[in-house]
Amino acid sequence: MKLVTFDAQPGRQLVGRLDAGTVVEFDVPSMREYFEREGQVRETGRTFALADVRLRAPIVPRKFFHTAGNFREHHEDLARVDWSHPVNKGIVFFQNVDAIIGPGEPIVYPANLTRELDYELELAVVIGTPGRFFSAEQAAEHIAGYLVFNDITARDIQRREMESGVFSFSKAIETFCPIGPYIVTADEIGDPHDLDMELRVNGDIRQKSNTARMSVSIPQLVAYHSPQTYSAGDLITTGTIAGVAASTQDPFANYLKPGDVVEAEIERIGVLRNPVISWQDAYGTDEPPAEQWAG
Amino acid sequence: MKLVTFDAQPGRQLVGRLDAGTVVEFDVPSMREYFEREGQVRETGRTFALADVRLRAPIVPRKFFHTAGNFREHHEDLARVDWSHPVNKGIVFFQNVDAIIGPGEPIVYPANLTRELDYELELAVVIGTPGRFFSAEQAAEHIAGYLVFNDITARDIQRREMESGVFSFSKAIETFCPIGPYIVTADEIGDPHDLDMELRVNGDIRQKSNTARMSVSIPQLVAYHSPQTYSAGDLITTGTIAGVAASTQDPFANYLKPGDVVEAEIERIGVLRNPVISWQDAYGTDEPPAEQWAG
Repeated sequence: MKLVTFDAQPGRQLVGRLDAGTVVEFDVPSMREYFEREGQVRETGRTFALADVRLRAPIVPRKFFHTAGNFREHHEDLARVDWSHPVNKGIVFFQNVDAIIGPGEPIVYPANLTRELDYELELAVVIGTPGRFFSAEQAAEHIAGYLVFNDITARDIQRREMESGVFSFSKAIETFCPIGPYIVTADEIGDPHDLDMELRVNGDIRQKSNTARMSVSIPQLVAYHSPQTYSAGDLITTGTIAGVAASTQDPFANYLKPGDVVEAEIERIGVLRNPVISWQDAYGTDEPPAEQWAG
Repeated sequence: MKLVTFDAQPGRQLVGRLDAGTVVEFDVPSMREYFEREGQVRETGRTFALADVRLRAPIVPRKFFHTAGNFREHHEDLARVDWSHPVNKGIVFFQNVDAIIGPGEPIVYPANLTRELDYELELAVVIGTPGRFFSAEQAAEHIAGYLVFNDITARDIQRREMESGVFSFSKAIETFCPIGPYIVTADEIGDPHDLDMELRVNGDIRQKSNTARMSVSIPQLVAYHSPQTYSAGDLITTGTIAGVAASTQDPFANYLKPGDVVEAEIERIGVLRNPVISWQDAYGTDEPPAEQWAG
């Protein structure tokens, strides 16, 4: 099943499932509540043609666990260009739930904050049943589905942050967290460790790999982080693959710019497409000056 | 005004204000919604003696910004014991909202995960009016109040995490996020840069300072992080002071153990008191084994 959050009229988000070009509405106010009710919701009887609705971010979770270092190839990529730290497997931080955008929504380029805007294709896991301190063997009971995540990152800010042993701000700026296009339930995915992954910028392939190349399996990853407790609808990402702009020969030729269109695709899930636009095009005003530390 | 979340009967959380030993109930389902409605809520007419209710975590925010490095003395403390990274000012990450506990609630010691449980007294700011990309001059309009935060940290996990340039898991484990005892509104605090801070373990003073020693003022700090956007009720912490156990001559004599009681106090706000208890005492069962990475 493909679970969607959508607008049939602007400003009012509805929840449903996508069935061969038709959206079937559910009687539940949000996707998070869909998972809190363990999917036990009725259909309203209303349906919409997919072409007549606008898909939104499928869910705004209570927590968005952001893990990194799960693809050895990304670590090797960054080591080759002498990136600041080893990206070991097992690291985690929380993504900003207020930076989430959905399919088609613009990534707004904050030119006063960054000149090094990068992409990172990742598979994200949707938690259904809440839980804590559970084992890899028990993890399947907690995994409800999957979606595509494009981890937009300001590399110049990240490099500065990593001097102190964190990176968060660089990935948490408004609009930096595209997810979608929908949640595909686990039963439709089969083995999540055999899915092709590909990210394109203006049609050019930048990242290409397969989830088979993860160092740590998804059940292990989900179990490992469970002492932090999962609520229904939480998301947990599984790390990016080789090919981010920062790891290329000429990063500045590959960093994102206003006018670019990024397509993040994972087999059996779908394509998450987002344009990059300038502050001026987004808001019709000049960008506010970045606050600087005094002293 | 002192804003409280409380149980009058177990399992049903109410919101109100504390007035000289009496809790006056508000007609609003949660503290977050109190701020979403800009404090425009009615009183229900019901009151309770403070002794008859149990105070809970005053708020569970949508986002809990955790900043670090704002007291130079903490950085110098850790540099002296050769801690892994410089704690520069300006760093941020998100705290786990599902790890929040309130006054009196136990910090559960997960002995299978850590042997180095530390404390960190911090002042936290409560955001009232949402906002983004604003200046230090505009910050006061967004600051609704203050509370005490005790940033419980597993130093052994943190040290391992920092090899890869993050720390989050070490501070995000279930029950590691005590806040309280209530929210004191900004008008009652006056200048937040002149408040005595003191943390005690079993009555012994471990941390002692004053908010005057911050490197960056609260309006600057709040403005600096605003590109990540604030929702009503968000929390943002302001960094800890000298004296954490990891920085002492004999850390293992000072790390927290089951049976300890930690009191985190900030002038004009109050005392946040939490016991540390074992897994067995918390749940009556053996602790589950920690999941380990395979391979």
